[in-house]
Amino acid sequence: MSPLPLPTVGVRVPLQDLHAWTLAVVSSLGTPPDVAQDVADTLMAGDARGVATHGTFRLPVYVAMANAGVMDVTARPTRAGGTEVLAVWDCHDGWGPYCGRVLMDDAVERAATLGMAASLARHASHFGIAGWYTMRAAAQGAIGIVMANTSPLVAPTRGRARMLGTNPISVAAPAAGQGRFVLDMATSAITWGHVLVAARGGTSLPEGVAIDGDGRPTTDPDRVLASGALLGLGGLESSGGHKGYGLALMIDLLTGVLAGAAFGSRVIPLSSSPVGPSNLGQLFLAIDPRALGDDGFPSRVEELLAELRASPPSSDASGPVLIHGDPEASLEATSRREGIRMTYPDHASLRALGERLAIPFPAVTPLEDEP
Amino acid sequence: MSPLPLPTVGVRVPLQDLHAWTLAVVSSLGTPPDVAQDVADTLMAGDARGVATHGTFRLPVYVAMANAGVMDVTARPTRAGGTEVLAVWDCHDGWGPYCGRVLMDDAVERAATLGMAASLARHASHFGIAGWYTMRAAAQGAIGIVMANTSPLVAPTRGRARMLGTNPISVAAPAAGQGRFVLDMATSAITWGHVLVAARGGTSLPEGVAIDGDGRPTTDPDRVLASGALLGLGGLESSGGHKGYGLALMIDLLTGVLAGAAFGSRVIPLSSSPVGPSNLGQLFLAIDPRALGDDGFPSRVEELLAELRASPPSSDASGPVLIHGDPEASLEATSRREGIRMTYPDHASLRALGERLAIPFPAVTPLEDEP
Repeated sequence: MSPLPLPTVGVRVPLQDLHAWTLAVVSSLGTPPDVAQDVADTLMAGDARGVATHGTFRLPVYVAMANAGVMDVTARPTRAGGTEVLAVWDCHDGWGPYCGRVLMDDAVERAATLGMAASLARHASHFGIAGWYTMRAAAQGAIGIVMANTSPLVAPTRGRARMLGTNPISVAAPAAGQGRFVLDMATSAITWGHVLVAARGGTSLPEGVAIDGDGRPTTDPDRVLASGALLGLGGLESSGGHKGYGLALMIDLLTGVLAGAAFGSRVIPLSSSPVGPSNLGQLFLAIDPRALGDDGFPSRVEELLAELRASPPSSDASGPVLIHGDPEASLEATSRREGIRMTYPDHASLRALGERLAIPFPAVTPLEDEP
Repeated sequence: MSPLPLPTVGVRVPLQDLHAWTLAVVSSLGTPPDVAQDVADTLMAGDARGVATHGTFRLPVYVAMANAGVMDVTARPTRAGGTEVLAVWDCHDGWGPYCGRVLMDDAVERAATLGMAASLARHASHFGIAGWYTMRAAAQGAIGIVMANTSPLVAPTRGRARMLGTNPISVAAPAAGQGRFVLDMATSAITWGHVLVAARGGTSLPEGVAIDGDGRPTTDPDRVLASGALLGLGGLESSGGHKGYGLALMIDLLTGVLAGAAFGSRVIPLSSSPVGPSNLGQLFLAIDPRALGDDGFPSRVEELLAELRASPPSSDASGPVLIHGDPEASLEATSRREGIRMTYPDHASLRALGERLAIPFPAVTPLEDEP
């Protein structure tokens, strides 16, 4: 997912402290230690890479789901059919990051001999940033591809109802140099997080990325929140929005529909008053070029990325020619060094959670006190 | 690919006559009959589905490539490595539609037992509409996924040079009802064909889909043609253009780079003065739900498509809620019944080709003479 602007008003918390606290919170629910580790690692990756909407921000909702029995904190995935190449798994409504990690690693292992292999998940839960899984594959020398369906927020082209999720796709590829390619994107023009941030800040949305309750384009985030919907990547039909909607639909077909999980408008959203498990569908696919007898793939990836990085910038470029994953990697390095920035409302929400569970939130520094 | 507006000034030619003429032209180059059949079928699918840029319009260039020895009209694909799951093939610069058809069918056949299988092509040629291959897979009960790299026209985010192709992706899925899902899209905001049509017609491009030679957004098609570039799906960075560029890059990595074909800015464009083979990379992937023990997939696809079709339309909808492949299927039925519409310049170009080869172009009716 694309990083949102980092807060300039709020607090800063050391990453290791936040990680330890998250681990303690997740463990206090009865989560086995190895499962809790994956959950804390994933949420930390979200926070550190600037995707706060997929980080510890979500913890209060996850805790509510566990307490309501909608998420089973002890569940471990089991095989539910499929083939050696395309294995179907049941996540049993357990923690998303654990099930996802097991399924991704299993696909990577099978791809090492098969060349290509995938795991399909049903009864899966929200799993944080999709890039966490594909980066694991790339770190092991494979191409990782992850797709997931999510609860409905996107309107079909020429429609006005929230029918499909912002269904993300992530692809990571190993490169010989320092920088991997890590695409991690919602297939909607913008994310729901962008709408929430705009509404809170009283700013407008870009033109042509969302509609109101009548299906008319709007830049007013409040109208979108009230009864509107997001548009697929590309926005209006004239600028290609039917393609983004098509990608969202493709992902629902390859995850929810193919895995035998929930799909379309029936996917239950994450909520602090959970009504039932989301039963998400997810796909984890790995391709290992070495199994194809090809040891030169990472060098060729590096060659292409280097060519793009060295290509002439536009005259009004806001930064260097973009390679997907570069801004997030740079942000992650900063976060590890300087800590995670958090808005006051997010900090208050996590501190309150810590108080309820008698696991005090770590000490923080107000951003305004910094030189 | 999205249909372009059909010409209202020009000629109409019966589809069967155009098919027979195309077959004769392709055969006259020394193309074996079974290969020629695939070529004619693909080009006819492009014309019939309203994607004239990927139909018989291309024949003069194909003929020039064959005459220059840049395309080998007798070549047949051979296995060049890989695994049973992910087979690598060499197309030996033969006709794109033939090599593509063989590789797609081979992937579908392997997926019937493996659940999922793919063919990677190197030294491949332009293959017409990607949807022709995925529809073949869907007609056999499998999900078909095709990706291809193409010659550079898209600028990276914050860059201004043509570095990547409009790299298309097509996905088709079988549905229990009458209508399949057939996504077939360039990963650029618009296609080069749209720019050419706008320049010819003296109209403007939509906002934020292309840039001029300095990398600044422009709606002037002539500036784009002169030294500009297309933007990835999503357009400017604020409306998500980095995602479309990311998809184009993902496709280049999964086709040209992975297959060991040409990639990035080095892909040679189609040209009537060909300088060398394009050495394209292409990926043909099939998933057969029946091999996963799942006979209900087409019913669930139908359920999701029906739900989308029945969802409330926007108040200013230009037509029914869109399902990808529906407009093209309707256009194809009309084309088969009423013939193919063609602009006068396209007709003149094909008629001239027919004269050069002594294969007279079929009789046509001027569109203006119609009631």
